[in-house]
Amino acid sequence: MATLLKLLDCIAPPVGTAGVQAAQALDQLTKPRGSLGRLEELAQRLAAISGRFPPEIRRPVIFTLAADHGVVAEGVSAYPQIVTAQMVENFLRGGAAVNVLARHAGAEVIVADLGVAAPLPAHPALLSLRIAAGTANMAKGAAMTRREAVAAIEAGLGLVEAERGKGLDLIGTGEMGIGNTTAASAIVSALTGLSPVEVTGWGTGVTEEGRRHKITVIERALALNRPDATDGVDVLAKVGGFEIAGLAGVILAGAAFRIPVIIDGFIAGAAALAAVRIKPETRHFLLASHRSTEPGAEHVLAALALVPYLDLQMRLGEGTGAALCIGLARAAVKILGEMATFKSAGVTDRSACPLSSPRSPSWRSFP
Amino acid sequence: MATLLKLLDCIAPPVGTAGVQAAQALDQLTKPRGSLGRLEELAQRLAAISGRFPPEIRRPVIFTLAADHGVVAEGVSAYPQIVTAQMVENFLRGGAAVNVLARHAGAEVIVADLGVAAPLPAHPALLSLRIAAGTANMAKGAAMTRREAVAAIEAGLGLVEAERGKGLDLIGTGEMGIGNTTAASAIVSALTGLSPVEVTGWGTGVTEEGRRHKITVIERALALNRPDATDGVDVLAKVGGFEIAGLAGVILAGAAFRIPVIIDGFIAGAAALAAVRIKPETRHFLLASHRSTEPGAEHVLAALALVPYLDLQMRLGEGTGAALCIGLARAAVKILGEMATFKSAGVTDRSACPLSSPRSPSWRSFP
Repeated sequence: MATLLKLLDCIAPPVGTAGVQAAQALDQLTKPRGSLGRLEELAQRLAAISGRFPPEIRRPVIFTLAADHGVVAEGVSAYPQIVTAQMVENFLRGGAAVNVLARHAGAEVIVADLGVAAPLPAHPALLSLRIAAGTANMAKGAAMTRREAVAAIEAGLGLVEAERGKGLDLIGTGEMGIGNTTAASAIVSALTGLSPVEVTGWGTGVTEEGRRHKITVIERALALNRPDATDGVDVLAKVGGFEIAGLAGVILAGAAFRIPVIIDGFIAGAAALAAVRIKPETRHFLLASHRSTEPGAEHVLAALALVPYLDLQMRLGEGTGAALCIGLARAAVKILGEMATFKSAGVTDRSACPLSSPRSPSWRSFP
Repeated sequence: MATLLKLLDCIAPPVGTAGVQAAQALDQLTKPRGSLGRLEELAQRLAAISGRFPPEIRRPVIFTLAADHGVVAEGVSAYPQIVTAQMVENFLRGGAAVNVLARHAGAEVIVADLGVAAPLPAHPALLSLRIAAGTANMAKGAAMTRREAVAAIEAGLGLVEAERGKGLDLIGTGEMGIGNTTAASAIVSALTGLSPVEVTGWGTGVTEEGRRHKITVIERALALNRPDATDGVDVLAKVGGFEIAGLAGVILAGAAFRIPVIIDGFIAGAAALAAVRIKPETRHFLLASHRSTEPGAEHVLAALALVPYLDLQMRLGEGTGAALCIGLARAAVKILGEMATFKSAGVTDRSACPLSSPRSPSWRSFP
């Protein structure tokens, strides 16, 4: 807890002029002002968050955290629990979607076991940060103790701290855990005050009947555990998951170290919401990768006041949306670093033309 | 004209089983079915269009065609005409946005002069396919003769034919031409029947007063020239541009050779609309990269029945949206080529679970 508290003290809104420098530099490049839209906003935010101009992306890492959920005993998922462990092995062999998309984006995937139920064979690339062999069933009591929640958050902090020493400069969030859309829906319901009906979807693909059952289970878990909405740690403990709490730690650490954090989909979004409840200033360091089709994702984005960069009707998790967004972030950074200026290219700027006026693009109002 | 007519005869809806094979293969991969959303649809369409399973992207090329527009004499643009030539030189030096984003996507940019007004210095990478030193002022008569329009279309065909011999397997469309949003708006108005008010925007950044003037000029050009909406070549001749007609040729050639064509923004969209009017079957070979903020873009997408992959509030042209979409296309192809299957990874497929049901993702209804 000492570690977490110390870290929280470091989180403050980003200061400095790097964001303004980026905006000014973008307006010198050979293109109508603001005409690259959100790609320009992304470049500017990467500068503002990191405090670096020009912003750089040398070592982006996707943290894919895995854990199991006791609530699967209620029959809330389309897949059996063993799939969590099987998918962790798939990550380690490089055959999962997040591996493919991370390679495409030139990002590393760090896989950590925060509490997978089935035993996992030792693997040099698997970080074992197990809190327990899966959470307890939140429909029958708290998913974990407060101490366990703090330990999971601190495990996430530790991951970022270790990678920071190796040059980590962009964080992607990812997860795997059969049953974790149920936990995420419960977290989002608890933190936003929205009903489980509003924030619960089909996850990996249950039927409509399955979804109604899932909602009932979440309602029961919330009524039984009464998580304190003002206390992000309490919400994570009562109805969360080890991988979700771990991601909250990853996100808080990103904020503390001024490393931009790319939120993946619905589950990573629930972790971000918890992180922001724990320390509200965290929100300044977040970027939303994509608009998941999981219905609760929309509410998470609204609560975080984030507009995602991509809308590809994805709902896979693992960090797949974050991986695609890292590709866009690299493109945005290259725009700043590689494009010619009006001056260097000898291109006439339109300020010479009386008909022109610099329209303020809407993204200039972004935080 | 003989060349064009011969090519049009080759355009037919894509046949074969590659698209179905791609869909079946996607369902074997270690992810819930359809959970990569439009990335899966993109992989499937690349297979269906090319007739190849697995689809490959080895040599994507963005054809950035440049030309000038006589209508700039009416004061419709925020930039002076000389900027077209200056930007062509910028393309050749690799300093423009499309160069940066194409490098990022691993795509080549081929720059062709279809009719830039100012003289351009010879450059080994500049293809000179000049029809004339800019179009005539469409507010005072036809922008070009029918013969010139056909020559520009055939120049585009020739570009694709030449690159096809070098392994071209994905086409990006791009353009540069001061004044060409005016031409594109006139084309879209003529081909869709929508009024110039509905399809005309701010282009590179004129004021609202400038936009109203632009609309008046387009209204005058359409009333004077009366383009035949059933004849795509006539519309291109009366109110088009050499680079737009050239792109229509590039697009028709892509369709003839079954090479997927990625439409960039509003102006490339106007070229696509003309190409589809010339040969309706062309639409099967098109992919829309992004939703431009130029107001007419929405109407073009609707008329082409295309849903873009990206919405980044961009309005730059050059092929910048196409370049970003080539990155997504590469990701989609890698998903098919590099992901493990349930069987190969030993991951339990959910068909084992009674609660599950394969939800049909909406994109299965795509053409």
